[in-house]
Amino acid sequence: MQNQILKNNEVGIFALGGLGEVGKNMYCVEYRDELIIIDSGLLFPDEHLMGIDYVIPDYTYLIENQNKIRALFIGHGHEDHIGGIPFLLKMVRVPVVYASGLSLGLIRVKMEEHSNLSLNLQEYHESDVIRFKNLSVSFFRTNHSIPDSFGIKIGTPEGNIVHTGDFKFDFSPTGNDSNYHKMARIGEEGVLCLMSDSTNSELDDFTTSEKVVSETIKELFKKIPGRVIISTFASNVHRVQQIVEASVLTDRKIAVFGRSMEKNIDVGLKLGYIKAPYGTFLFSRNIHGLKQNNITILCTGSQGEPLAALTRIASGTHKQITLIPGDTVILSSSPIPGNQESINKTINLLYKNGAHVIAQSPFADVHASGHGGQHEQKLMLKLMKPKYFVPIHGEYRMLKRHAEHAIDTGVKPENAFIMDNGDVLAVSKEGARIAGKIQTSDVYVDGSAIGEVGSQVIKDRRELSEDGLLSVVMTINQERLEVICTPSIVSKGFIFMKDNVAMLRDLQELALNVTDKYLVQGKKLNISGMKNDLTKTFARYVDQKTGRQPMIMPVIMIL
Amino acid sequence: MQNQILKNNEVGIFALGGLGEVGKNMYCVEYRDELIIIDSGLLFPDEHLMGIDYVIPDYTYLIENQNKIRALFIGHGHEDHIGGIPFLLKMVRVPVVYASGLSLGLIRVKMEEHSNLSLNLQEYHESDVIRFKNLSVSFFRTNHSIPDSFGIKIGTPEGNIVHTGDFKFDFSPTGNDSNYHKMARIGEEGVLCLMSDSTNSELDDFTTSEKVVSETIKELFKKIPGRVIISTFASNVHRVQQIVEASVLTDRKIAVFGRSMEKNIDVGLKLGYIKAPYGTFLFSRNIHGLKQNNITILCTGSQGEPLAALTRIASGTHKQITLIPGDTVILSSSPIPGNQESINKTINLLYKNGAHVIAQSPFADVHASGHGGQHEQKLMLKLMKPKYFVPIHGEYRMLKRHAEHAIDTGVKPENAFIMDNGDVLAVSKEGARIAGKIQTSDVYVDGSAIGEVGSQVIKDRRELSEDGLLSVVMTINQERLEVICTPSIVSKGFIFMKDNVAMLRDLQELALNVTDKYLVQGKKLNISGMKNDLTKTFARYVDQKTGRQPMIMPVIMIL
Repeated sequence: MQNQILKNNEVGIFALGGLGEVGKNMYCVEYRDELIIIDSGLLFPDEHLMGIDYVIPDYTYLIENQNKIRALFIGHGHEDHIGGIPFLLKMVRVPVVYASGLSLGLIRVKMEEHSNLSLNLQEYHESDVIRFKNLSVSFFRTNHSIPDSFGIKIGTPEGNIVHTGDFKFDFSPTGNDSNYHKMARIGEEGVLCLMSDSTNSELDDFTTSEKVVSETIKELFKKIPGRVIISTFASNVHRVQQIVEASVLTDRKIAVFGRSMEKNIDVGLKLGYIKAPYGTFLFSRNIHGLKQNNITILCTGSQGEPLAALTRIASGTHKQITLIPGDTVILSSSPIPGNQESINKTINLLYKNGAHVIAQSPFADVHASGHGGQHEQKLMLKLMKPKYFVPIHGEYRMLKRHAEHAIDTGVKPENAFIMDNGDVLAVSKEGARIAGKIQTSDVYVDGSAIGEVGSQVIKDRRELSEDGLLSVVMTINQERLEVICTPSIVSKGFIFMKDNVAMLRDLQELALNVTDKYLVQGKKLNISGMKNDLTKTFARYVDQKTGRQPMIMPVIMIL
Repeated sequence: MQNQILKNNEVGIFALGGLGEVGKNMYCVEYRDELIIIDSGLLFPDEHLMGIDYVIPDYTYLIENQNKIRALFIGHGHEDHIGGIPFLLKMVRVPVVYASGLSLGLIRVKMEEHSNLSLNLQEYHESDVIRFKNLSVSFFRTNHSIPDSFGIKIGTPEGNIVHTGDFKFDFSPTGNDSNYHKMARIGEEGVLCLMSDSTNSELDDFTTSEKVVSETIKELFKKIPGRVIISTFASNVHRVQQIVEASVLTDRKIAVFGRSMEKNIDVGLKLGYIKAPYGTFLFSRNIHGLKQNNITILCTGSQGEPLAALTRIASGTHKQITLIPGDTVILSSSPIPGNQESINKTINLLYKNGAHVIAQSPFADVHASGHGGQHEQKLMLKLMKPKYFVPIHGEYRMLKRHAEHAIDTGVKPENAFIMDNGDVLAVSKEGARIAGKIQTSDVYVDGSAIGEVGSQVIKDRRELSEDGLLSVVMTINQERLEVICTPSIVSKGFIFMKDNVAMLRDLQELALNVTDKYLVQGKKLNISGMKNDLTKTFARYVDQKTGRQPMIMPVIMIL
């Protein structure tokens, strides 16, 4: 890129993911022959990406500039920041991955399933400075919904580039506090460009403190007469600690259900993020013999995920836990956009099967977001006093609002850059400009294959999901120019052919009529013409008869 | 039913749709040989019902008891209350359909497309009493997000059954007021059983008055320097009137975009629900020559519907309207559950293409719900003083909360019945009991066919949408016991076979190997065994190679 896009004294700032979306965060800072990557996340797709498991960034630019990559730095351990690491390492040589504390533990667990990949994983501490030829990297603690979340400062000859990572300011946090003083020092030192978390820029509130959540949970645990069934994000180790404290206080033992929850609690206990008296967590989750008000059931499923523990408990299909009168379910979480419907279904089932349900509301602070609202974003801007500003981590409307907040706090309007993935901002002492665009796109991961699912395949899946498929197989003897088998009509997801004998006969007759037109002595058999004709004829007939548009798939067997 | 479920002096109350869901409302009151139907709605399915256009109730009970049906009464003209009428009339003989005012107009428009159906449509007025042998039906005006919304009282020898329909109490409404006094009189007269709207039972608020919305819209229209682009539900004729008034006040002309909006405004103007000075609505929507602050663009698409006007404007694909700097978009609506994601996408695009966007928030009352919160529900309960109570129109958690509100206002806990579709409540002077259950279910409408799409078809569509389809066609000469064509492998929505020649060859070889096992001299050809074997073998191979599970569709052609 250097030669084409950036001048020799310019620092390039761009994202391969994370702009215009919440997910697959991957930000890059490039200066001459050095490139630093911050985060390597994935995105969980919405229902429009039929059957796709994850979306990751297109790594082409990194592959082509492999020799410049100095290191990957991880700010915190959420999947939208670390989930892409195995895919990245499969395709790109990264000399070293730096992470801290819990993030390090979570990456280790994740990479156990990818022992074939070469990974040089190093720990950083807040006070470390990691120096490269022209660039240096240092850190400042932030507060977020997972322990050990760090902002990253990249020192360049042109000035400091600061990346906040995901953050909120909690004046009475659970776990580590934000390092206000280090942020203030960085601000005094001077920030050329700030990249800051935009998720909650539309919120006029200051995020509820975890202390309030902690107290609410304790009060609820005291009041609830029977079993507490509580669900939260598996990675929210702070919340788990609050649940542990409330359980200890109210003499409840905890049974944990759900694989990701078990795994994260395991890591959290080992690394000391979760502190619980011996015996608090029930061995083999055996709750038999305990009184109902001595039981906490901690489980996954706060997003209504179809296979998660809470969803099974709600629907009565969980192997160990059946709802009983007196059960109270607490959803200690907020709906991720797109999940509201599944969550509602779970809540309906829980009520229906006799449980009482408490979800986050202005009357019950059982959850606080991990992302600061506009006042917190403005505090960050005030502390950092950046010359240039790039809102990151958010959909367009969030970036836009965040830019407005920045301008409110003193950033010049022309110095706030709302960018897309791939846009390259070139900053230097002399100025800042959008210097160009590098290749980016969504890469779909389905099963074990990366990137093989193209947009045509997604389009086909969508079409199939709408009205199903109708297939006709014609077997033709090329020499005798004859159809030699009854046309086979098969449908999936369209209608039951067996119940529609008249339609089946019509279609067979139509198929024979169409095919006959192409079986002409002395003319070369036009197979693609025949296929097109069959498709059109079938589509027209089916639309008339049923008003539906299944995908038509003609297959011609030539003998 | 009479002989099996109800005693001779019991009134049967049940729903064919509307309980445990928001949609396809259809409630029945039955006494001896008379049956009254209230509303005939449809439900717009969520994305889990692949490709289904609508869901309607199973009308079997009505078909079987056709001779009892006296009339269908329509409370108001929303699709979840009138959308099922054409489907109902196709299958069930209904002697007369009663509707009032705007509902009548909307039903007429709807039925123009179904001129083959026999319909006896009659108008009722609030003061009417329609008498049958044992039953009589009368009405009381309520306030809702569409004009001419009525509650219905059915007088029976055992007492009054009251159905509120959808309602809120707005002390300063746009359009007709609720008839508090008639409700009070009905309450004094005595209500044996109240069926009441539960939609917003989880809301602790009193619904914002339309007067506030009206003022907010006027203030915004004054402040906005350029064009106003405003979107709302097409059926919200009150809102349209507010937009007309704000436009007239600020000297703006209105261009209307979107078929349903044009249709409803047409009906609204004709019937006098919308009053606008001549020239307010622009002929052929020609905005050329007008100054930007003289333009209101009123359009559909407040739910982010893919083909609606606002969605096209946002994405830059609308034929007539292109966004220009200074445009402000007002979403005068609330998200219907499940639509939040599409709405967010639209908002992002609007911002991205330079528009400013204002949506309903605590800081901008540009919309009010049509359903009352818990205080309004309690006011209805206080006015009606019912002995028995059935919460209707809502998901289970809403019904449950509404029942709690009823108990708070004095209904005995044992007299509040949270029911499912099909549950029959038998009420009489002597008591009330759940007497039994009649057949109900979801009937899917896809294209022009009712009910032909069964759950297997939906299952197939879902499977196809996940990983697509892989088909293998084998052509076999039965006499010679030979495969006589190269196996044809076709895939849709799985991967591009052309890019995967190695996999194609492997699959062909596997297909030949499997088939060979079945081509044994002297044994009857086991075609279904062969198909099962092909399916299993292909599934195993593909899962190993790709981690995916496409639907496998083997086709065997026998010569």
